[in-house]
This record gives sequence, C-alpha cells and structure tokens, in this order.
Amino acid sequence: MPRGRRPGSPATREAILDAARHEFASHGYERATVRGIAASAEVDPSLVLHYFGSKEQLFAAGLDLPMNPATVVRSVFEQGDTADRGQRLVAALLSVWDETADRSPFVAVLRSAAGAGPIADTVREFVDASIIGTFADILPGEDRRLRAALIGSQIAGLLLGRYVIQIEPLASANPDHLAEVYGPTIQRYAYEDLATG
Amino acid sequence: MPRGRRPGSPATREAILDAARHEFASHGYERATVRGIAASAEVDPSLVLHYFGSKEQLFAAGLDLPMNPATVVRSVFEQGDTADRGQRLVAALLSVWDETADRSPFVAVLRSAAGAGPIADTVREFVDASIIGTFADILPGEDRRLRAALIGSQIAGLLLGRYVIQIEPLASANPDHLAEVYGPTIQRYAYEDLATG
Repeated sequence: MPRGRRPGSPATREAILDAARHEFASHGYERATVRGIAASAEVDPSLVLHYFGSKEQLFAAGLDLPMNPATVVRSVFEQGDTADRGQRLVAALLSVWDETADRSPFVAVLRSAAGAGPIADTVREFVDASIIGTFADILPGEDRRLRAALIGSQIAGLLLGRYVIQIEPLASANPDHLAEVYGPTIQRYAYEDLATG
Repeated sequence: MPRGRRPGSPATREAILDAARHEFASHGYERATVRGIAASAEVDPSLVLHYFGSKEQLFAAGLDLPMNPATVVRSVFEQGDTADRGQRLVAALLSVWDETADRSPFVAVLRSAAGAGPIADTVREFVDASIIGTFADILPGEDRRLRAALIGSQIAGLLLGRYVIQIEPLASANPDHLAEVYGPTIQRYAYEDLATG
C-alpha cells in the first residue's frame, strides 16, 4: 500500500463509491477510469478492483442498481433452454426490481427526472388518459387495459430510445424496417392470446 | 363575448396556449380545466373549445406534440385491415416523429429530463456498453446490435412503466404473468426472423 493511501476498510469502500459516483457523473461512464476513481479516493487502483471487480460493477454499486443488468442477462442467456429465455429474463429482472426498486437511489434519480414534478405528472396523466385510455376504448376483451399498457410500454421504449436517449442503431434505423419489426409485437399485445404468445 | 374578454385573434390563441401550459404544469392533466384555462387567459371557455376542440387537443397543442397520439391510434385502429395494425401504427408514429422530434419543445423537455446532463449521459453510456453491448456479445447474427436494442427498448419501457412512471395495471401486475406476456417478445427479438414476425 503506497504511503498516504487509505488501507482497506468499510470506510475505504464508501470513499471509493463516493469517488465513483462523482467521477461517473462528471465524466460519463466511458471516460471515467478506475485509475481516476482510485486517485480521487486516495487508494491504489488494485484496491478498487479488489472491492468491486470491474468498472461496470463499480458503476452498478455506485448507483445502487438492484443488480448489474449484464449479470442478469448473462445468467439467463448463457445457459439453460433457449426457448424460454425471454420469459426467464423478464422474471429475473422483475424479481430483483420488485424487491428493491422502492429503496433504490437509482430509481429515485429516475423518478425525480422522469416521474415527478408537475410536467412529469402531466405527462403521466396524459399517457394514462389519452394513450392507455384510447387503446382501452378500442381493444376487445376484459384485459384491454393490460393490453393497452403493454402497447404503451413498447411504444414508450421505442420513442425513448430513438428520440430522447438516441441509442444506436435505433436512432438511425430505417422507419419502415422498425415498423416491420415492432409491428407484430403491437399486434400480439392488441389481439393475440397473451399467455402463450 | 363578455366585456373585458379578449376577442378571437392569433394573439388570443397564443394567450390560451400559454395559460394552458401553465395550468397543466401547475395542476396536472386531470385537474386542469378548460374553464380554468379560459379564466387565466381572460377569454370565454367556448372560445378555447372553438380554437382547440377539447382539453386533450389543447394539451397536445400546448406541448407542441408532433401529433395527438390518440388521433394516430384511432386513425390506425378504427379502420383498415386488422392484421397489420401494429405495423401501421409504428409507421404512422415514426413518420410524424422523425419529421418533428428535433424541433419539438416536448422532446426537448424529455431530453433535458431523461437524456441530458452528466447522470443521464452516464446512464446512456452504461445502457449502451453494458446492456446493448452484453446482448450484442451473446446473440447470433449480423443484426445482433439491432436485436439488442429492440430488447433494450422493451425492457426499458417495462421498467419505466412499472417502477418509474408507475402506470396501472403494469405497476401492480403479477410478475409471473408479465414474464409470460413479455417473454415471447424478447424471445422473438433475440432469435426469430424479425421481418416476418
């Protein structure tokens, strides 16, 4: 351990997390480095890796994500039957998030950005009354509100990815191709037997 | 026209929109009223309806939404062949939003809440590197990044609806039922022929 650097301890772990939150917020995920976080926390980089394993895991720990999403994805998609991976992934994500979302600083950050405040309340009420309500008027069956919400969740994810967050290749994909690709999903949520796909 | 109230004119229309933006932001969509907006703009409620038709259309006009989503939904789902409604809905939404998203104050508001600032940059980079990147490592085929982004868009919409915006019945739905319902969507995005569903 270099002179003047803190030894390993719970307080050191917290100092690393604080430094990580600050570095990720200041520089973004790609540009933040384990070396920079270690320097900011006044510890050796090897201690950061000893505690957290990788930059990715450090980010998840710093945001207090319920679980590293990459770990969940890998645990489901790299083993077991191929045919029910989609269902197992959703089940795994929900089982973790249902337990922890209400206590997660990460969800709190998202809620304050996207889910609280008068504008966001207005948007939520509008989505509820106008989008979900409109589909619920039009669609058949007793589960029409669930069908409407399923459609809303896919449309919202698409608009968010393409226009707001602008994730590639969604942001620049050909719109006709996206309509072909997303069409059957909306179609199934609207009209088909939901339990069996 | 009551005494002291403004007559119809482009300036009146703008005054109504300004009042509407303020009322919706202050009270939310459900609690804001045409009567209250008219009073705030110092016009008769009938003039508000003359210009904008309904509270819903007034909200869309005030946010400068590319198009009233309910109108798009109805125009697609209340006519034409049932079998390709999903595809036509996505095509209709994208054709409007592709043209106008960059100039829309509504998208600007969403971007500043969810898509800008250091934390949001960090989250976007993390989603890109960790979620999309992880799926792109694991999935087969040349279009694996698109498949990864499709999965990400559905997972993001689900998490947003259930935990952040908390739209019903998504927020309180049984998690096993959601896994059954969303499973085939994820499964198709991951492994199946995307163009034909």
